[in-house]
Amino acid sequence: MRSDPRKALVVLSGGQDSTTCLYWALDRFGGTAVSAITFDYGQRHRIELDCARRVAERAGIPHACLPIDTFRALGGDALTDDAVAVRDETDADSGLPNTFVPGRNLVFLTFAAAWAWPRGIGNLVTGVAQTDYSGYPDCRESTLASLEQTLRLGMESDVVVHAPLMHLSKKDTVLLAERLGALDAMALTHTCYNGERPPCGHCPACRLRAKGFREAGIADPLCADA
Amino acid sequence: MRSDPRKALVVLSGGQDSTTCLYWALDRFGGTAVSAITFDYGQRHRIELDCARRVAERAGIPHACLPIDTFRALGGDALTDDAVAVRDETDADSGLPNTFVPGRNLVFLTFAAAWAWPRGIGNLVTGVAQTDYSGYPDCRESTLASLEQTLRLGMESDVVVHAPLMHLSKKDTVLLAERLGALDAMALTHTCYNGERPPCGHCPACRLRAKGFREAGIADPLCADA
Repeated sequence: MRSDPRKALVVLSGGQDSTTCLYWALDRFGGTAVSAITFDYGQRHRIELDCARRVAERAGIPHACLPIDTFRALGGDALTDDAVAVRDETDADSGLPNTFVPGRNLVFLTFAAAWAWPRGIGNLVTGVAQTDYSGYPDCRESTLASLEQTLRLGMESDVVVHAPLMHLSKKDTVLLAERLGALDAMALTHTCYNGERPPCGHCPACRLRAKGFREAGIADPLCADA
Repeated sequence: MRSDPRKALVVLSGGQDSTTCLYWALDRFGGTAVSAITFDYGQRHRIELDCARRVAERAGIPHACLPIDTFRALGGDALTDDAVAVRDETDADSGLPNTFVPGRNLVFLTFAAAWAWPRGIGNLVTGVAQTDYSGYPDCRESTLASLEQTLRLGMESDVVVHAPLMHLSKKDTVLLAERLGALDAMALTHTCYNGERPPCGHCPACRLRAKGFREAGIADPLCADA
């Protein structure tokens, strides 16, 4: 099925990166062509879902939230399992951090493509980045290129997967958000792995976010809010 | 993470093809190396889940059932949506039958890989086939090859995806089941799209199954059961 190359669907987590991507999509495809999808996958911090909803509302775009109850049933990772603490160090066996949910971004993008397919949406936009990435192999450019090909074959579509932050440092992502007029929306986003608001400032996600704003020489509106 | 090339996980739907694949895996990897996974994705016919459980029990292998509530939320297809009747003809827009759930097998195999990953299972086995396939692009060999590559990259694994029925006709699948000693288990399987038991005999799935047994010159134990 041919899809419309002018329409785009943003995978919106409610975090800094996907919010920046939403504004990137608005800039590239125009306000009426963009919609967003959020996955309720049992994340520990339900606040992320609220953040995504508020970011989409502020941008004035259609927003869908789809449930995925499978990750919780898979169990054992720090992002969905209350019994597992977020650790900084990587797992000795796999070399990956214990926040790694195997296949998470593959599933998100596959479901986003399944949502886009009957609606003729030809572009998917994701906030993953291999610069500064936390050791997640499903955030790499090679993985996304392979996934794009898999989605095209598996759905007989010509969908394009965009990852505008792929090669940007956190600093450059902050500068991009400023250029796109997305900074104000940053006050609505959530980053902290520990689910705190104001952010804990200590977890890997908080530290990475703070480093990006500091290096960009811009105050984080989320912390100004606090 | 290196996985064990001697261990295999079969995606078991409770139907004829995946049951044949389970016996293929037992033959190839041995009884203690095989486990099975079934997805409860809101299929109209809950009987499939019972069939899968009984097939796995009979084979004496560990069996997990994982929920996926997302397809129902995506909506609009005949395999999960009670409001949509199974039609024989294809959709004019997409050229695909209305039983097509975009991305279904991509999601099943990705979650199977996510289940296999922490358990070090190096092989995934699926019953999809491009011969006799119902127009589903996610059952093709090119799609599975691309998905295998995506899973390897996205999970940093060396997982292998097997589709032993890929190039077999339904007749050859029945003959394979006979050779593997899987025929008795066929009485436990479910095929009918209309969820009837004994099978309706009229839906595309029933007709295809009957044709396979007829051409193989073997009585279908499911119908003998009736």
